[in-house]
Amino acid sequence: MDDWKQRLCFALPLIRQAGTILRGAFSLRKQGLYRKKSETDPVTDTDVELEAFLRKEILTKFPEETFIGEESANSVDKFDHEPCWILDPIDGTANFVHGISNVAISLAYSEKGQVVMGIVYNPIQEELFTAVRQGGAFLDDVPITVSDVDNWNEAIVCTEFGSDRSVAKSTMMVENLKLVLDEKVQGIRATGSAALNLCYVAAGRFDVYYEYGPYLWDIAAGSLIVEEAGGVVVHPTGSKFDPRSRGVLATNQKFWKKLKFPPY
Amino acid sequence: MDDWKQRLCFALPLIRQAGTILRGAFSLRKQGLYRKKSETDPVTDTDVELEAFLRKEILTKFPEETFIGEESANSVDKFDHEPCWILDPIDGTANFVHGISNVAISLAYSEKGQVVMGIVYNPIQEELFTAVRQGGAFLDDVPITVSDVDNWNEAIVCTEFGSDRSVAKSTMMVENLKLVLDEKVQGIRATGSAALNLCYVAAGRFDVYYEYGPYLWDIAAGSLIVEEAGGVVVHPTGSKFDPRSRGVLATNQKFWKKLKFPPY
Repeated sequence: MDDWKQRLCFALPLIRQAGTILRGAFSLRKQGLYRKKSETDPVTDTDVELEAFLRKEILTKFPEETFIGEESANSVDKFDHEPCWILDPIDGTANFVHGISNVAISLAYSEKGQVVMGIVYNPIQEELFTAVRQGGAFLDDVPITVSDVDNWNEAIVCTEFGSDRSVAKSTMMVENLKLVLDEKVQGIRATGSAALNLCYVAAGRFDVYYEYGPYLWDIAAGSLIVEEAGGVVVHPTGSKFDPRSRGVLATNQKFWKKLKFPPY
Repeated sequence: MDDWKQRLCFALPLIRQAGTILRGAFSLRKQGLYRKKSETDPVTDTDVELEAFLRKEILTKFPEETFIGEESANSVDKFDHEPCWILDPIDGTANFVHGISNVAISLAYSEKGQVVMGIVYNPIQEELFTAVRQGGAFLDDVPITVSDVDNWNEAIVCTEFGSDRSVAKSTMMVENLKLVLDEKVQGIRATGSAALNLCYVAAGRFDVYYEYGPYLWDIAAGSLIVEEAGGVVVHPTGSKFDPRSRGVLATNQKFWKKLKFPPY
């Protein structure tokens, strides 16, 4: 665990520096000046700049290790075997483009397919979530824990609607939402950031977060932060979690056995 | 307009003072210690305290005028004729209870059924939105305007899922959401605060906000802020807006003619 903590201490100043860049770009944002990966998934120059900066700093320090980023996703197959650094330079890019403050830099470090260090930093709202495996989860150095809500009518459930607008995906999303509403859930939220949703579950703000769609870099750091806050992370069907499976369900130990979504 | 500005200047220090109370209560929140109006609509002691404080201050200064609050809603029928102060002491109570920072104090002043002054204050994220009719809209004293996005694939659309969990309401909500997804919208958001959603439309963060369900006190101030930011506020069906109609659709001048939801 000491080695993982040292990696956290190495990464934190870099994340803070990246956060300063992100905060500056956010305050200067010019709407509409972005290129698009797909119509519903904007990529800004700031994503590219942040990833290049962090990639260079990490690979200079650890030249033998693998770097997986949202903008350079071709190394995902090394996740199972190599020590990997996994970055989403801006989780919530659409929020960033629109001036919505739910944005985060998400960085994880994994060994043999297991995330052992995670950082999620929102430099606009100035919240820093961190975890090292077996070392607990923290918000700005204060320990956090998941909620103990285990019934629907006290639960805030978060989900996201991603960028895939196929009929099959949209139909599945509204059908699952209807299942949750029919349980008489207290509230539904959608923030636009998978990494922050996981951290909000870890901090007991949201009681549940589920989504079909997020990528490894969106949820690697946050999933460790939930587990270290005493929570549970599984596939939406209830099966074992794999951060590459494009499905996540995060909640607390009491509630999770009541939660299961159909396969997609 | 000068009289309305004077009312804004009268109200602002009170709202700041209420915000200090709210911020203190937020940081001390004890989960689970709330009484319930309905299973999905929690009311906290802080709501009641804030409403009593603002009601007393306003009626001491303006004893002849009408006060309409979320916790004292029996004067709504005076909205058409009397000068009215309209308060939601905590818009986003479920967020407040769960430690989610999307909470706001919403205060409006109306004459003859028309809102002429509005304040929405989020004391956690420290954002203050204000407007006086024909005087523009402001975030922390800086003028704000709605976005100019008029196509779905660049649009962030916000909606809410309220507290009514009847089959009819839930079915309507997911059907309307499916309509929006099928237009290949860029993103869907749900913050849990109607007042803030309107302000985010006014500030160009969200391109559209629609909802069946909010009450007069949730949307009175925010609807003026949208209009004064150059936006449009109508009923979700596209017909004329009445803040008591339990329906709202807020967007910009270019987009609104493309938007229409079925009656509910």
